[in-house]
Amino acid sequence: MAASTTEALDRLLPGRVVTDPDVAAGYAVDAYPQAAAAPGSTFTVVRARSRADVQVVLRYAAQHRVPVVPQGARTSTTGAAGALPGSVVLSTEQMTSVRIDPVERLAVVGPGVLNADLKAAAAEHGLAYPPDPASSSMCSIGGNVATNAGGLCCVKYGVTADYVRGLEVVLPGGEVMRTGRRTAKGVAGYDLTGLFVGSEGTLGVVTEAVLRLVPLGDPPLTVLAVFPSLAATMAGVTALRESRHTPSLVELLDGPSVDAVQDYGDYGFPRGSGGVLLVQSDRPGHAAEDVEAYAAALTAAGAAEVAVAEDRTEADLLLEGRRVLNPALQARGPRFIEDVCVPVGRLGELVAQVHVIAERHGLEATCSGHAGDGNLHPCFFYDADERASLAAARRAFDDVVRAAWALGGTLTGEHGVGAQKAPWLREELGEAELARQLAVKAVFDPLGIMNPGRVYG
Amino acid sequence: MAASTTEALDRLLPGRVVTDPDVAAGYAVDAYPQAAAAPGSTFTVVRARSRADVQVVLRYAAQHRVPVVPQGARTSTTGAAGALPGSVVLSTEQMTSVRIDPVERLAVVGPGVLNADLKAAAAEHGLAYPPDPASSSMCSIGGNVATNAGGLCCVKYGVTADYVRGLEVVLPGGEVMRTGRRTAKGVAGYDLTGLFVGSEGTLGVVTEAVLRLVPLGDPPLTVLAVFPSLAATMAGVTALRESRHTPSLVELLDGPSVDAVQDYGDYGFPRGSGGVLLVQSDRPGHAAEDVEAYAAALTAAGAAEVAVAEDRTEADLLLEGRRVLNPALQARGPRFIEDVCVPVGRLGELVAQVHVIAERHGLEATCSGHAGDGNLHPCFFYDADERASLAAARRAFDDVVRAAWALGGTLTGEHGVGAQKAPWLREELGEAELARQLAVKAVFDPLGIMNPGRVYG
Repeated sequence: MAASTTEALDRLLPGRVVTDPDVAAGYAVDAYPQAAAAPGSTFTVVRARSRADVQVVLRYAAQHRVPVVPQGARTSTTGAAGALPGSVVLSTEQMTSVRIDPVERLAVVGPGVLNADLKAAAAEHGLAYPPDPASSSMCSIGGNVATNAGGLCCVKYGVTADYVRGLEVVLPGGEVMRTGRRTAKGVAGYDLTGLFVGSEGTLGVVTEAVLRLVPLGDPPLTVLAVFPSLAATMAGVTALRESRHTPSLVELLDGPSVDAVQDYGDYGFPRGSGGVLLVQSDRPGHAAEDVEAYAAALTAAGAAEVAVAEDRTEADLLLEGRRVLNPALQARGPRFIEDVCVPVGRLGELVAQVHVIAERHGLEATCSGHAGDGNLHPCFFYDADERASLAAARRAFDDVVRAAWALGGTLTGEHGVGAQKAPWLREELGEAELARQLAVKAVFDPLGIMNPGRVYG
Repeated sequence: MAASTTEALDRLLPGRVVTDPDVAAGYAVDAYPQAAAAPGSTFTVVRARSRADVQVVLRYAAQHRVPVVPQGARTSTTGAAGALPGSVVLSTEQMTSVRIDPVERLAVVGPGVLNADLKAAAAEHGLAYPPDPASSSMCSIGGNVATNAGGLCCVKYGVTADYVRGLEVVLPGGEVMRTGRRTAKGVAGYDLTGLFVGSEGTLGVVTEAVLRLVPLGDPPLTVLAVFPSLAATMAGVTALRESRHTPSLVELLDGPSVDAVQDYGDYGFPRGSGGVLLVQSDRPGHAAEDVEAYAAALTAAGAAEVAVAEDRTEADLLLEGRRVLNPALQARGPRFIEDVCVPVGRLGELVAQVHVIAERHGLEATCSGHAGDGNLHPCFFYDADERASLAAARRAFDDVVRAAWALGGTLTGEHGVGAQKAPWLREELGEAELARQLAVKAVFDPLGIMNPGRVYG
């Protein structure tokens, strides 16, 4: 730990600073270990309990030009939230207040609230908070806001930005600002909310989010479709797009992804397929009719087997299998996870290229993602002891980004840029746009102390 | 007209500059005549046909420090779009391209497209563009984006911002920037889209909008509920909030509003009531069941009469009556239109205060609005020949803004700030936030030539 900063903040915020090095080490790395700071790097961990605590840290950081890494639940897959050398890691995990307002259909929450806990609190009032990253049970709302997280529901319900009505943010120096509105409508001055959503801790620290809730849907019904090839699987995705009643979930797993899940535990998926689709409807009063229509469309598109989950237990198990995909792939070994997003009409072309790219570089790969949104998470596995294998994986990663660009897509659909994708951002945005975004950043973070090096490199 | 600017732009953009003073005069004022420039003011009108035309104007304007007023269809009720002395009025009314992409469920449109024309183009593909200002048949998408327009559908479908996926904007100096994304998800760098939506022409000129479309709903069914008092009408609004299936429209008109509509033409409303609610459902397959439930709830809440429109003609007539409310009130005489928005749970209190305020100032008033959103449009009528009457109307306007603030609301839900509400913005935002917003503005408009004086005063 940076001794002087740690001591100074410990005096200012007794009980909030982590003084045990072993405990502090647990805050060093997020879910992208490749971006971990060099062993022996010093940093300070503060576990804020309130907006006032965050203000103290950001006042100190501005005075002493100390970099600050806002940190939620460390589920970032891009290295946006791991410690930087000499930084203060400002964890908001203890800021877990939740207030549900059923009349206004709003939740006012602290950034440390877990996504799944907010869902549960809303459900007690017959309401739902739709954004649903696969890591829902582990990831925090602060992190969801920081990355504009998506997940499994987006095909019908959109992304985090679609539910953030306003934010309370502490800026470097300790000033508190409020963005957006608390009313259903409001257009007095610029709405800076969307600027902070997805800003990955580069502007300030979100200390409260005002989130829109929706009436709770019916429990979804689930179809599992098994295809003989990945191309046939993608034909299934295309067929679903014709449906007037949008599925609430369209998840793609290729054969190797399914096998990795089944290696991790028996979640009821068939091994050795060309690919599977998990499809749901939660349309009130019509879910059964919808899944029947989806099943017919998937069969017509070439599915070898289509099964509607017979009960909630079976459906939950399948979804749980989808949700453990990330740890299941992690268990298989070191890999890079992509997060490209293309127009949904071009997804089939992108999927076709992934395994071609893997083969060209002599790598094992999996291909899965949120097929209803065109958002794909290919993984390239490498041998960490082989420099050539790592280099090949990096090239494959680059090839997929370029393939996505060529199809009209972006390098990141929902994971964010973080440390991992910063090298590509300049090329995607162009110099003029990059300069403009940095000028906007400077309005809020003139000293450049907020998560420096992340996103903008 | 500013002769030198007009001549210079006429040379640069032959055929686009309005050289006939009578024609140019038609571009002087929007739907807030109180903000009209002094008679004899000179200004230049350019009717851009393309992005390139807009670039030429904004390059010239930056070089010569000429203020620019972006102008859509002049339906702004706040004076955001009328000519400023010495300005270039940059009309986008001729930029009316519409491209519908049914696979991606997107519309790519020019800013001059009328809201109703986009709706019609989308409907040909079984899709809908929900944002629905009462002026739908007259207002342009560019103006809708500039004000983050709301309208009649917001209670279920949200506002313009919820449908803008990305923008093409020309900045002062002529540079073109693109905000947001063309894919369903995307988080590469800051999303500046939300900053431009609702910016009322103070940052740049939108030359293209990428808009999200949704599947077309069923034709809505309509309930008309007539109440003996305004208080009872508001009890009806509260009762509707209990419904799990959110109405697609909840419009409030008090007795004087209804009478003004019926004076304008026979739209099928009853005269002399305490207030009416228009309520719709467009839920596929369930609209009849919903309106029956709404009708029962409204009766239980105290409606004297509840009628479900028997056919589309009858329903369309009622909605048309609601849509003509603004011209109907205009026909009644000079007035100020409010646009405050409060938490929906506090709307009843606000409504109760409106007529108290009117009485206190000795004014005639109407009270109507989008009751499902807490967005109210009280009108205060004055005698333009009586200075005291005008002053009283201004005081009443101020009282309603303060009442809205006291209830946790905002001075503008959807009309924007424009010239009319600029005096209140500083108080709503506070000095620190105002300074931050001006610093953001300076990133895009460092010379301060975009719609100067509007919004930020």
